[in-house]
Amino acid sequence: MRMSRYFLPVLKETPREAQIVSHRYMLQAGMIKQAAAGIYSWLPLGFKVLKKIENIVHEEQARAGHHAMLMPTIQSADLWKESGRYDAYGDEMLRIKDRHDRDMLFTPTAEELITDIFRANVTSYKDLPLTMYQIQWKFRDETRPRFGVMRGREFYMKDGYNFDLTREDALHAYNRHLVSYLRTYERMGLKAIPMRADSGPIGGEDTHEFLVLADTGESEVFYDSAVTDLTFGDREIDFDDKAACAAVMEEFTSKYARTDETHDEALFNEVPEERRKTARGIEVGQIFYFGTKYSDALNAAVDNGEGGKVNVHMGSHGIGVSRLLGAIIEASHDDKGIIWPEGVTPFDVGILNMRVGDEACDAASEDLYKQFIAAGLDPLYDDRDERAGAKFGTMDMIGLPWRITVGPRGIKNGVVEVTSRRTGESEEMPAADAIAKIKAIYAAL
Amino acid sequence: MRMSRYFLPVLKETPREAQIVSHRYMLQAGMIKQAAAGIYSWLPLGFKVLKKIENIVHEEQARAGHHAMLMPTIQSADLWKESGRYDAYGDEMLRIKDRHDRDMLFTPTAEELITDIFRANVTSYKDLPLTMYQIQWKFRDETRPRFGVMRGREFYMKDGYNFDLTREDALHAYNRHLVSYLRTYERMGLKAIPMRADSGPIGGEDTHEFLVLADTGESEVFYDSAVTDLTFGDREIDFDDKAACAAVMEEFTSKYARTDETHDEALFNEVPEERRKTARGIEVGQIFYFGTKYSDALNAAVDNGEGGKVNVHMGSHGIGVSRLLGAIIEASHDDKGIIWPEGVTPFDVGILNMRVGDEACDAASEDLYKQFIAAGLDPLYDDRDERAGAKFGTMDMIGLPWRITVGPRGIKNGVVEVTSRRTGESEEMPAADAIAKIKAIYAAL
Repeated sequence: MRMSRYFLPVLKETPREAQIVSHRYMLQAGMIKQAAAGIYSWLPLGFKVLKKIENIVHEEQARAGHHAMLMPTIQSADLWKESGRYDAYGDEMLRIKDRHDRDMLFTPTAEELITDIFRANVTSYKDLPLTMYQIQWKFRDETRPRFGVMRGREFYMKDGYNFDLTREDALHAYNRHLVSYLRTYERMGLKAIPMRADSGPIGGEDTHEFLVLADTGESEVFYDSAVTDLTFGDREIDFDDKAACAAVMEEFTSKYARTDETHDEALFNEVPEERRKTARGIEVGQIFYFGTKYSDALNAAVDNGEGGKVNVHMGSHGIGVSRLLGAIIEASHDDKGIIWPEGVTPFDVGILNMRVGDEACDAASEDLYKQFIAAGLDPLYDDRDERAGAKFGTMDMIGLPWRITVGPRGIKNGVVEVTSRRTGESEEMPAADAIAKIKAIYAAL
Repeated sequence: MRMSRYFLPVLKETPREAQIVSHRYMLQAGMIKQAAAGIYSWLPLGFKVLKKIENIVHEEQARAGHHAMLMPTIQSADLWKESGRYDAYGDEMLRIKDRHDRDMLFTPTAEELITDIFRANVTSYKDLPLTMYQIQWKFRDETRPRFGVMRGREFYMKDGYNFDLTREDALHAYNRHLVSYLRTYERMGLKAIPMRADSGPIGGEDTHEFLVLADTGESEVFYDSAVTDLTFGDREIDFDDKAACAAVMEEFTSKYARTDETHDEALFNEVPEERRKTARGIEVGQIFYFGTKYSDALNAAVDNGEGGKVNVHMGSHGIGVSRLLGAIIEASHDDKGIIWPEGVTPFDVGILNMRVGDEACDAASEDLYKQFIAAGLDPLYDDRDERAGAKFGTMDMIGLPWRITVGPRGIKNGVVEVTSRRTGESEEMPAADAIAKIKAIYAAL
């Protein structure tokens, strides 16, 4: 993309309404614009990152054998009355009357509707196990929406639902989701720690939240520092292998890590003192096993293959897709702006032409731009006739992990400058080497 | 995908509520399930096609130089009151009160919000031309929703908006959208004819609708049969070239083609009688030029570079993404089910194992399945132990354009059977040739 043709309204002033850094930077970098309290438009740069995160979630869900589908945003209240949650959900549910005066609502989650789809179509244990998920806009009418996309009213969420014949199978689905989520967050450059949590209005016996450590997190967390050393990495796993998934679950959840909701001081004190940590965390996902809570309420049963019927065991699993942009920025920024991990960066590399109008600089920049595209990368070329300070400021604020600076002196010497946004380190090299270097970095992802 | 693990609830009975074939087949093929009147869940098969159509729209919009972004589904009523459309829109607008009793609405279109984003960020002619678009869920509270996704209440739509300094520039954007839409529909295997139309509640001077001819279309259309011979094909075009885009506009719209709203009997009678056609059509898109209607109402002005301010010239442009599934099926089916064009098919090829449990058939089918995946294709393998009739019936209903049948006799002779869903013609060949044949078909898209 050529910046001269892009819609990238970088703000000069610090937006006063923003209390946390991710909110401020998303506004300043021209990623979002507030449309109403807690409701945002996603401008082109923000939308690109949102899509990258969405794609990683889709890819990892497919890898785990889960089926993508989509449920509507506007639902009838009927199923919610059947499950008993219509009244229980409170004022956070956005309630609507349609033109025929029927009770409708904007979905805050979808246990009821997915269970209805299941019970209408699946009657035999032979069709299990089954996990379906969607990535869809949700609405929760918060009293006091704040922190930008971190606590908005309209938000983009992945919600998945598993249907299994037995408790044991459903616990495998639970473990499988844990593994899948570990992979998902790591691909986004995030360390998200599974912590034992409280099930809240979803209900259920077993639940873990995934938390990213950040000073601005809404939850207080207590953990054994050994959990922060764990990484899933690039190990191979067969998602159908119950023992393998259970082993990962054991590895990642046997050490103490809890939010304030489930914190147990006595247990915590068993952790060696030097490893006992308290911090703040941002919740970016949660997995639940709730047994037959919804299949009982909505009568979702299958033949068990032995002449009987059983209500299916279920769980649900969520990733806060739009919230993740905020969480990633909270975890990865400096005082100049955002620092995107390579896995989710809106553009792979920025090209900064220091002297627009200079024949040699223009030609070298154009050539780099075209060669990056030919190499299958997505460059952002700052071809604007602006002063150097403004150009560096924009690049630093929007946070592309790699920048290539093309200046007249370098070109004379046959080199360009390659700069890492994270370390700030620069290196001069011929343009061909710069392309090869950046290409290798993204190929290794 | 292995069918034994897929969620594909193909219905045996004909759904009684469906009045048109696309609605019936989408229900029968397990693509959608009604959640409320005019509101559908997209089951895995339907969601896959929806995504393919969405991706084609994104790719063609990027090619034309338009920027993807996203606006929220729930908007404040304030901007709509500013433009005067809040009262004018009538009962089709879903009006909502939030918990603080503020007037909100579910977006039926987004001229106001995009103009607000524009006026807050763009102040100079130097930032023009600019076209942004989104693909987002919309809601129109139809009194009598019907025909499945063809006339639903919640629907998925691409809506784009151009901002230009002059009328001439905005008319280029109009022409550019026409070219882009021609390419878009052709990639989906559709012949969509641009027809002069009426602007309705969007307003404006110039508008064309794109119509797909089908007996079940909601509009009566009148056209010179010569328009049906036109195809854009694989010609190269520079979307910045005003003359080239204008020439395509001229080529595709100079012959008579109108909907009943703008039909002119006298003009129609000038078409040679043998080329004068009346038919029914399904609207799948519309482009508008409406000048300064919204920039006047919302005060969206830029410096014109000569010391003055001008209100920008705008247009908006829509493609009915979810409706397209219905339109494609209306245009491409037979009495056995859907016939997907290759560009939008949910899976590239079906593999039908005629004797599950037979060692040779299982091995040959598995091998085909893995080789297709290795070749970058997306096969659906019917590995269920079902009778042949049910398996053929399912494959025909869901409409994959190519089927490979693996049977014991063929395997003994070293061949499989390759069948075209469209023509019904079958050919026997070695498995390697079948893979090469299917691969070549998709490589040519």
